[in-house]
Amino acid sequence: MNAASRGRPRHTDRSRTDLTAPEEILQAAAELFTQHGYAATSTRRIAESVGMRQASLYYYFPTKDAILAELLNDTVQRPLECHEALRALDLAPEVHLHALCSADCTQLWTSPWNVGVLCLLPEVRTERFAEFRSGRTALRLTYRELSARVLAALPAPRAEDYVPDPAADVVFRLTETLPNLRSDGLGADRQPGRISDLALHVLGWRGDWDRLRAGSARALRAAGA
Amino acid sequence: MNAASRGRPRHTDRSRTDLTAPEEILQAAAELFTQHGYAATSTRRIAESVGMRQASLYYYFPTKDAILAELLNDTVQRPLECHEALRALDLAPEVHLHALCSADCTQLWTSPWNVGVLCLLPEVRTERFAEFRSGRTALRLTYRELSARVLAALPAPRAEDYVPDPAADVVFRLTETLPNLRSDGLGADRQPGRISDLALHVLGWRGDWDRLRAGSARALRAAGA
Repeated sequence: MNAASRGRPRHTDRSRTDLTAPEEILQAAAELFTQHGYAATSTRRIAESVGMRQASLYYYFPTKDAILAELLNDTVQRPLECHEALRALDLAPEVHLHALCSADCTQLWTSPWNVGVLCLLPEVRTERFAEFRSGRTALRLTYRELSARVLAALPAPRAEDYVPDPAADVVFRLTETLPNLRSDGLGADRQPGRISDLALHVLGWRGDWDRLRAGSARALRAAGA
Repeated sequence: MNAASRGRPRHTDRSRTDLTAPEEILQAAAELFTQHGYAATSTRRIAESVGMRQASLYYYFPTKDAILAELLNDTVQRPLECHEALRALDLAPEVHLHALCSADCTQLWTSPWNVGVLCLLPEVRTERFAEFRSGRTALRLTYRELSARVLAALPAPRAEDYVPDPAADVVFRLTETLPNLRSDGLGADRQPGRISDLALHVLGWRGDWDRLRAGSARALRAAGA
């Protein structure tokens, strides 16, 4: 350890060298939090895992909570940004909802570590995670609004049809089942697409599924997602 | 502290006197685990919260993991027992599934503490929780089998219908959304019934919903649940 590096980030000896130092910290923390638990992981252990001094880690993240907050914020900010990009395309509501749900589920499903399981930790109810919680609420209400638009465009239901209340947030809740599926080591290859199909199905949408999937994929390409 | 009580449970000074000592320990632990976190809660703190010496707590539960295992086992053993009682009634598959789902969701929704959020903890992947995990798998496969029976009894789907794969365990996953809903402080009065309705809806069942709900409630009374 040399004196010049004290309190400053080290940029050598890291195992994941294609990442920036904060990205490396986030990825190492995601692994430790999901594999060993949040409370059981110290900032010292995170620093060791990236080959960095603890003081250097604090240069990027003042606290362990700040690392978790960044990991969790990312899980809601990315789909919210995707929603904005999709909005500019002026899509039919079922295509917009399917595309948003696919993008959201793909990140929950393919991120290096299953960070989604961390959002129910009691720590996350504290003030330090207010930004994450408000982003998560915004995402939930985005799904609710899109669901209401899909429902409004459907033919009138028959007596034997069940019509979910948009306020039950069923599509948002379906996306939240992915961390559980991942944690169980289950799920199909096309799992994110399956959840998106299920989202439209549960709202009572019926039609040409291949066409819907193709339109959704096209929208995501156009949105740069 | 008197010598006679050493290593033996104390039966006085407890705040929840209608419960047995192990029940009190379980309830206090459920509160602390869900409100402050599992890793952050010591057996000492649990013992203090029920007004018991730590040595007395160990008389009932050898480890903290044993307390969590008992709490989690209960969440799967109760619906599995309910399933056995329903099986004796020889019900139509949609009634059986609706009733099981209602009983399962009611316990997840109305238990004093939201214990369902604890099943994704990394600790739960260890050998000590093997019994819970195998019970949870049994419950998941019970939902899968009942879902397959409901699907088999439906009229042939039309091209525009989406038919969920029973292997996707969508009904089991819907029940797992309740801990998230509870954690968010959201959900309707009839939330367990809503999830049961949604379970049948998602499988594509259509019919007289009031009759289904009445049959399900009757079956649960007959099953003593």
